[in-house]
Amino acid sequence: MKKKARRNNMVIAQSGGPSMVINASLMGAVMAAQEYHKEGKIGKILGARHGVEGMLKGDFIDLTRLSAKKAEEIAATPSSALGSCRHKPDAADCRRIFEEFKKRDVGYFFYIGGNDSADAARIVAEEAEKEGYPLVAYHIPKTIDNDLRSCDHTPGYGSAARFVASALIGDDLDNRALGGVKIDVIMGRDAGFLTAASALARTRPDDGPHLIYLPETVFTEDKFVKDVKAVMKKLGRCVVAVSEGIRGKDGVPIGATLGSGEKDSHGNIQMSGSGALGDHLAGILKAKAGVKRVRADTFGYLQRSFPAMQSETDVHEAKCAGQVAVFCAMEAAGGADDMPLKGTIGIQRRKGKKYDVEYAAMPIQNAAKFTRSVPKEFIAKSGNDVTKAFIDYARPLVGALPKTAVL
Amino acid sequence: MKKKARRNNMVIAQSGGPSMVINASLMGAVMAAQEYHKEGKIGKILGARHGVEGMLKGDFIDLTRLSAKKAEEIAATPSSALGSCRHKPDAADCRRIFEEFKKRDVGYFFYIGGNDSADAARIVAEEAEKEGYPLVAYHIPKTIDNDLRSCDHTPGYGSAARFVASALIGDDLDNRALGGVKIDVIMGRDAGFLTAASALARTRPDDGPHLIYLPETVFTEDKFVKDVKAVMKKLGRCVVAVSEGIRGKDGVPIGATLGSGEKDSHGNIQMSGSGALGDHLAGILKAKAGVKRVRADTFGYLQRSFPAMQSETDVHEAKCAGQVAVFCAMEAAGGADDMPLKGTIGIQRRKGKKYDVEYAAMPIQNAAKFTRSVPKEFIAKSGNDVTKAFIDYARPLVGALPKTAVL
Repeated sequence: MKKKARRNNMVIAQSGGPSMVINASLMGAVMAAQEYHKEGKIGKILGARHGVEGMLKGDFIDLTRLSAKKAEEIAATPSSALGSCRHKPDAADCRRIFEEFKKRDVGYFFYIGGNDSADAARIVAEEAEKEGYPLVAYHIPKTIDNDLRSCDHTPGYGSAARFVASALIGDDLDNRALGGVKIDVIMGRDAGFLTAASALARTRPDDGPHLIYLPETVFTEDKFVKDVKAVMKKLGRCVVAVSEGIRGKDGVPIGATLGSGEKDSHGNIQMSGSGALGDHLAGILKAKAGVKRVRADTFGYLQRSFPAMQSETDVHEAKCAGQVAVFCAMEAAGGADDMPLKGTIGIQRRKGKKYDVEYAAMPIQNAAKFTRSVPKEFIAKSGNDVTKAFIDYARPLVGALPKTAVL
Repeated sequence: MKKKARRNNMVIAQSGGPSMVINASLMGAVMAAQEYHKEGKIGKILGARHGVEGMLKGDFIDLTRLSAKKAEEIAATPSSALGSCRHKPDAADCRRIFEEFKKRDVGYFFYIGGNDSADAARIVAEEAEKEGYPLVAYHIPKTIDNDLRSCDHTPGYGSAARFVASALIGDDLDNRALGGVKIDVIMGRDAGFLTAASALARTRPDDGPHLIYLPETVFTEDKFVKDVKAVMKKLGRCVVAVSEGIRGKDGVPIGATLGSGEKDSHGNIQMSGSGALGDHLAGILKAKAGVKRVRADTFGYLQRSFPAMQSETDVHEAKCAGQVAVFCAMEAAGGADDMPLKGTIGIQRRKGKKYDVEYAAMPIQNAAKFTRSVPKEFIAKSGNDVTKAFIDYARPLVGALPKTAVL
């Protein structure tokens, strides 16, 4: 070797809301890094506790010798095993982080999370450049909301969608038994992909959800009451799937005006972890739709952290995304022209009838900050349902669902 | 045969809140009745739609030739396949019902449900006696609340408890990732058995739920705030399992004062299907415990109708309860001295280390109207947890839970 080699220890961390497969990405990356470690190309594999916060405090655990058995157990465990945070680092934070990195000879940084986490990784990477700190930084995609612009679909979505569709299967059967209207409030602040997945619950012509409202279409009380009345007239019962992010003509999420108004450091208003929107919608129906029995459930955090609910496809792809990120980072460090030093892993669906995906390194800003919405071709013209194109899109991500029967 | 034989058609129906195994009881009874049908002892096997309401309207479906395959599918399906109701029949209702029964030569009546359903069956049976209508009437136990006086535990409880414990496993991992306080509101209007089952989620010393509040102990804001502060000080995070039925010194459920005040015909106030209690408790902690991040989820109807969540023990016992009810009814009709003509099926645990139960016919009033609470030996003296005796009681009913790992 002619000159001092690149610092070859790595830090990996998790950020944002947990998912059922974010640990699979973590373990995919750690297991791949262990292979490079055996070849002497990666030194220590350090996990930072609670994302940026652990990096600031120097709170790391050594995963270099984590056993394959333990890795499998962690990969099957929901939520973020390293802990998470919603901290947006500024320049001062980054300088502090580089001190911790320098102390530990860190040359590689992996951050698993959604668009805000990609943005945090981008900030760290850009500040490293400014400070002249040599760092290869990769974002590994995760979000149950499925709203990253860099992916056809995002690890975490398939399993959360699996929970939502399963819940709706049961909930529709419950509604058959006692009638009235059942409202289910589903996560997804700006993108309705998770709420849309409720449609996968349907196998019989009269199965719910009978109405699906996404943040991508304008929600009005009048239309809502009219829609519910029509279903009640036809079936004598009605199951409604509503995104927590539904918004009126003014574009303001209805739930945001009912909750605590609490914001995280990325400026996102808290909407989950409260039953206010469901209760509000139930109140509207009792008052204006003449329905006596109206119940509302807010699925809350169960939909992102329920154990033994992983979609097979999802957990596999999450692992692969972690592995590929390590591969791309090492290639980039080795000087490969087509690999960015600041990257994210895009997941794209291959064309053809058989479901298949490919992974590719992309500039990190492709995943950062801005999100994507449910495209128009997935939303029914009625504004209260999804299309067959969406079902075809989502079905392979979720896998086979529990079968049920009716008399 | 010397005299006109007893009317030998049977009616079976489901009532009250659905469960994950109430269909297993239905199918257990129907399959057992099919055996008697083959012997010519039972004629038609009729299912009434929506319990008493279908019996009043003459809305029946014929299950005499239901295939074993379909029966298995239905038994694995959550919620009440015949439909349900919360209708308390009066004398006039009963006369109307007997007209429908007479038209169809019905001599046997089976009603699957909780204490209110047992009471409804008791009313039908007693009115039949008064009217001189010969009827063998059996109640088949079902309730996720586990509050029937006639049973050590009730079919439906084990599976709902399985959902609750699973949810808490995931929720505790979620809380580890992002910290703060998480409140989970769990069903159980008067009895805390289902909330208590959250304790089964614990495998590690610092696993949540860290606090468990049942309706059986007095809930005060001051104690709640103090308890949460103590856990936050120790662990820096806190998961709380709260029964929807928690009540203050005055004995009034706190949730009942926040909701719609809606009552069913048995006089029960609606408390599920609303996030009001969780939001109320979260508000208290934000204001008085100095915790910034407080989230509350209300598990709602998912905990009684989630698919593929049956406990093996629970589904087996539910089927047996249905089978045994048909057996006892036939024995009673045949003149067996020890079998009541108006009965319920009690389930008692056998003594000994190995888990085992026995079934026995009891007078129907043993299950009707009044309920039981979580006994004192299951509640920790602190008033915010359960005892090991409860864990030993509940573990075999729920079965093995998903395994998880932490770093």
